[in-house]
Amino acid sequence: MFTGLSAFPLTPLDDDRFDERAYAGLIARLVRAGVDSIGALGSTGSYAYLDREERRRVARAAVRSAGDTPVIVGIGALRTSHVRALARDAQEAGAAGVLLAPMSYQALTDDDVFGLYEEVTAELSVPLVVYDNPGTTHFTFSNELYARIAALPKVAAIKIPPVPLDPAAAREHVAAVREAVPDHVSIGVSGDGAAATGLNAGCRTWFSVLGGTVPNTVLPLVKAALNGDSEAAVAESDRLRPLWEMFAAHGSLRVTAAIAEHLELVPPHCLPRPLLGLAAAQREQVARLVEELRLA
Amino acid sequence: MFTGLSAFPLTPLDDDRFDERAYAGLIARLVRAGVDSIGALGSTGSYAYLDREERRRVARAAVRSAGDTPVIVGIGALRTSHVRALARDAQEAGAAGVLLAPMSYQALTDDDVFGLYEEVTAELSVPLVVYDNPGTTHFTFSNELYARIAALPKVAAIKIPPVPLDPAAAREHVAAVREAVPDHVSIGVSGDGAAATGLNAGCRTWFSVLGGTVPNTVLPLVKAALNGDSEAAVAESDRLRPLWEMFAAHGSLRVTAAIAEHLELVPPHCLPRPLLGLAAAQREQVARLVEELRLA
Repeated sequence: MFTGLSAFPLTPLDDDRFDERAYAGLIARLVRAGVDSIGALGSTGSYAYLDREERRRVARAAVRSAGDTPVIVGIGALRTSHVRALARDAQEAGAAGVLLAPMSYQALTDDDVFGLYEEVTAELSVPLVVYDNPGTTHFTFSNELYARIAALPKVAAIKIPPVPLDPAAAREHVAAVREAVPDHVSIGVSGDGAAATGLNAGCRTWFSVLGGTVPNTVLPLVKAALNGDSEAAVAESDRLRPLWEMFAAHGSLRVTAAIAEHLELVPPHCLPRPLLGLAAAQREQVARLVEELRLA
Repeated sequence: MFTGLSAFPLTPLDDDRFDERAYAGLIARLVRAGVDSIGALGSTGSYAYLDREERRRVARAAVRSAGDTPVIVGIGALRTSHVRALARDAQEAGAAGVLLAPMSYQALTDDDVFGLYEEVTAELSVPLVVYDNPGTTHFTFSNELYARIAALPKVAAIKIPPVPLDPAAAREHVAAVREAVPDHVSIGVSGDGAAATGLNAGCRTWFSVLGGTVPNTVLPLVKAALNGDSEAAVAESDRLRPLWEMFAAHGSLRVTAAIAEHLELVPPHCLPRPLLGLAAAQREQVARLVEELRLA
């Protein structure tokens, strides 16, 4: 399950309510494209903005539409007891795995974060992905903390933040994480603009924002990298550079939501407010890129 | 309401459940000490970790125990529709005002944040305090954004982050905010270690973490500053410097929770996990400071 393309769909809202029909359509696209796994309720799936009942509905809808494609469900929340409840819900919904980021409001210590993973994994029946996303959690893992957490039961993978863009620095970075954690723990890269570099540097999975909406566009990159054709992977990534630049400027969520809205896969303004999404001029730029890059 | 000491009590948990009896005791202490207002469900009151029903119970308990002391209730949440619901709940509970921080998971733009305040204030019947707390929200207000938001109805005060510790720089900083917003909008300081400097620089209110647990300890500082005796205010603050140093090292919430636990005002380990609170050696240091500084 923790290899290849893990595609993270949006959770579209329509006038502040979960649009289950549009969501089922997004999941069906991912299955048709042949993604390796689906990351429901990741950051791209707005997990942090949804209440427990909504998240239960989203998890069930994802599993229902995914068929044989494994669904990994995000269970992050600010409070440990809430995370435990979400883990139970995700498993009851049929999640093949769960994804846990150490969300923070008060800054967390390493011991706080270790305690969170210890408490949650102690009662878990499915594999867990450690979700390291400092841009949203404002928590920074050390390799030492990766090692402590990777020794817990059920920890199967780590979703690391963007690797350095220099290939040698990226290889060194991934090798250091690889050395810190047991062999059975898979390392996957996030940050779409760094995906080719990360896969070429030894990551086994790309946890992809863009791939959750236009999977056919990103699959050639993953396949090239995992087949050892690092140049082809880099060429695919370079082709998409105008998108990575928009991601860097406006956030991958806002840009991807605008792509999905332009393609009419989701309702207009599908993000939870206060997130307004892109301004009109940026939306026009997105529309041009959808055509030029043949996003699908 | 927006002058003097605004005291922010903890919301104590006992085995992950709101301890209403202990909370009523904290509120009663604040009333007896004669604080000017009570900030229920601030960051110190763990608002971000509690669900809607818990927050409703906390707001009601605060208003019930506060008598004639005005209660300002924190209504922050990641999603605008949740903030609106919490604003309704707070007003139904009898809040004299509400306090709103732009909580973030995805980074917010100025327009996102303005839209949040616009939508919430449009249906508000009580005054609102703009809660600027970049350490927890990871959002930075500009004076221009203060000005846009301060022009909205019901905006009555801004709780600014710690001012520069140099008195001249602090005066300049507060004067610039003062110039940006209308006269009817009060400016209050937070960050307990910067309170004396902030009050001496023209802030009218101290939104205080420590004052929510040991109000008698901090009232002389507020009174001195607001009576124009800036030297006495600084002397009071200097006396408490060992605490400010612990706040800087471990966070004001963890240290204040340890004080309240040591004084047996709240149950042991009263913070929501994953927050573990202070380690044993730090708790011994807190216990010594409670005696040496006669915290009460």
